[in-house]
Amino acid sequence: MFEFTLDATCGPARAGRLALPHGTVLTPAFMPVGTQGTVRALSPQDLRAIGAELVLANTYHLHVRPGEGVVAQLGGLHRFMAWDRPLLTDSGGFQVFSLEGFRRVSEDAVEFQSHVDGSRHTLTPERAVEVQWTLGADIAMAFDHVVPGGADEPTARDAMERTLRWLERCARRHAELTRGDGKTEGRKGDAREAPARTPPPFRPSVLPSQSQTLWPILQGGSHLALRAEGLQRTLDLGPWTGLAIGGLAVGEPKHMMYGVLDALAPRLPAALPRYLMGVGFPGDLVAAVERGIDLFDCVAPTRNGRNGSAFTPDGPVNIRNAEHREDPRPLDATCDCETCTTFSRGYLRHLFVAEELLGLRLLSLHNVRFLIRLAAEMRAAIATGEFPRWAAAWRRRYTQPGST
Amino acid sequence: MFEFTLDATCGPARAGRLALPHGTVLTPAFMPVGTQGTVRALSPQDLRAIGAELVLANTYHLHVRPGEGVVAQLGGLHRFMAWDRPLLTDSGGFQVFSLEGFRRVSEDAVEFQSHVDGSRHTLTPERAVEVQWTLGADIAMAFDHVVPGGADEPTARDAMERTLRWLERCARRHAELTRGDGKTEGRKGDAREAPARTPPPFRPSVLPSQSQTLWPILQGGSHLALRAEGLQRTLDLGPWTGLAIGGLAVGEPKHMMYGVLDALAPRLPAALPRYLMGVGFPGDLVAAVERGIDLFDCVAPTRNGRNGSAFTPDGPVNIRNAEHREDPRPLDATCDCETCTTFSRGYLRHLFVAEELLGLRLLSLHNVRFLIRLAAEMRAAIATGEFPRWAAAWRRRYTQPGST
Repeated sequence: MFEFTLDATCGPARAGRLALPHGTVLTPAFMPVGTQGTVRALSPQDLRAIGAELVLANTYHLHVRPGEGVVAQLGGLHRFMAWDRPLLTDSGGFQVFSLEGFRRVSEDAVEFQSHVDGSRHTLTPERAVEVQWTLGADIAMAFDHVVPGGADEPTARDAMERTLRWLERCARRHAELTRGDGKTEGRKGDAREAPARTPPPFRPSVLPSQSQTLWPILQGGSHLALRAEGLQRTLDLGPWTGLAIGGLAVGEPKHMMYGVLDALAPRLPAALPRYLMGVGFPGDLVAAVERGIDLFDCVAPTRNGRNGSAFTPDGPVNIRNAEHREDPRPLDATCDCETCTTFSRGYLRHLFVAEELLGLRLLSLHNVRFLIRLAAEMRAAIATGEFPRWAAAWRRRYTQPGST
Repeated sequence: MFEFTLDATCGPARAGRLALPHGTVLTPAFMPVGTQGTVRALSPQDLRAIGAELVLANTYHLHVRPGEGVVAQLGGLHRFMAWDRPLLTDSGGFQVFSLEGFRRVSEDAVEFQSHVDGSRHTLTPERAVEVQWTLGADIAMAFDHVVPGGADEPTARDAMERTLRWLERCARRHAELTRGDGKTEGRKGDAREAPARTPPPFRPSVLPSQSQTLWPILQGGSHLALRAEGLQRTLDLGPWTGLAIGGLAVGEPKHMMYGVLDALAPRLPAALPRYLMGVGFPGDLVAAVERGIDLFDCVAPTRNGRNGSAFTPDGPVNIRNAEHREDPRPLDATCDCETCTTFSRGYLRHLFVAEELLGLRLLSLHNVRFLIRLAAEMRAAIATGEFPRWAAAWRRRYTQPGST
């Protein structure tokens, strides 16, 4: 379980498969984001129809609402959201460091204010792992300290060092839970024990012999030496079944993100799946696969879809534009999704202009399908050894101006 | 075509079938409302999955946005909204008389202001028929003058008389269009011809030998003598392939609506399907079928669904209520829809509390399915002669307090 197998490589680009308790994920793969336990405007049936294999949900959001206890009472996250394929939960680190409102960071914990009702909450690395254990996704993420894209070296180092210390605590707690030890151990040399009131986490057994793996998140901002050091020290804390690269696509220029990926690529162990968090847009997916990335997540396809912006092979299309008024063509003639095989651009434009809910859903559906197909096409091009040529042709068409 | 066959009767209650160009509708039947060419939050695929046989769209709304010309350019209403089963278009009479804003009624026309951009529009009976012909639904409705539920006899008579005069004009224009005569005839004894600028309506041939029928709408408020007179005079203007009863469920007390239906029931020709416009809620459907009604439409299932209110056999359920927080049960254990076979009440409540779009869709889907199943159950009970017993048992359960 949690084994990653490389099927093919083509330069740094990789095609693989990741075996998880709820199924196998073929990579490169795009993971739709179901922040609150639902991929906005899409049903599990929609997600299956467009070939989603792995869905992300958010620990912070589910913790503040409805609470992991409610999810557990309702059978765990898979049952709760009726998604029987693999799930990954983000740790909440990104949210508590990026959402507005009160926040107090100490070595032990992050205290923050719920965006829902302003109530105070505390997440420790242990608690973040416990919440995710209770939710029961296939993959849990370690609790990390995220800094903005432009953070200077001392700030980025401080956050990276804390992330590494927290990683140890996450891993220890996760190992205890995996061994079936519900009690929280005091940490060696640390007088602050986890609060006694923390109940032993309840974990419904949705699958027989269900298990969960924990992945670390690499931080280090855009500082290449920090990133290299952080990677090595993270690997030293292993073994791991996968690695996430965090703290990118958080406001830094694109070339910096690519620079970090270029610097990390030769150092990343081939045997581990590599997950670039919060990416992305179509062009970013291609550029990151060129740099050896296997997994992606991003709200862009659903968020942009709700704003009327659709991905197409010829670049983005704003469906609200008057030019689409009487256009009988599909949004994307190459696409096999329900939106593109059923409706005209003229109808989709009408839905957006008339503020009809179906429009939000149809563009979200297409955009997610677009990224899933994009990942599948890259996988095929890697397998045949044609990836560089495919990528060049894809980029030429995608960035050609005014083609739609 | 447009033939209505009675399969069974049980007292005044009837089970029948209505043959239309795009398919056959089994009655009693509930028609979901797709005001702007989409049943809010539901896709055509959803509607097929829950057994919808006939969908209503709105002439007024489609005329002001996107305009019937756009719909025609995009292949007609069936193709536009990707609904290949029967469609009915309301005439716009109800909207121009009930929406807020400027309105001027003359014998010839109603001038009104678009709710979208405040622009002035004019609908004549001829124009309402032409717009519907251009949209291309299976059933078009005559342009009627609707008055509020509490209107006094002179007001109701005035509107009814106008509705009858307009019906003649609608029928004449519809006959011309059906004969393939695109030109507008001057009306005998009427100097005001339809404006010369009206283009001959364009009608895409979606189906070979496609045709459309026109149904009259009975008015007369809650005045029984007026209703009886209006019915007779409407029938005298026929023959028709169906009859609609308008001007009910517009604010009058329930017993008045039932009184009108009771008064009409023995006078309605058995051979014509009877469509009670704008009804209803589950209890109203049962009461109206008891009084010989065959067809219904109402925004209640989708509008209430979007507000978190669900129909169940035990009465309405507000899914936002805290009692559903950890409830693993389906919304309606007797229901076969995607919502009820997939999700818990706890999850549905979470979707509403977290303001997730999927909640709007799932409750709309269930509520429409609930009315379609209710109609199908009534049909079955009529066929076996058990309808009165069935209705009594249904009502007992539906109105029993606090059962969910």
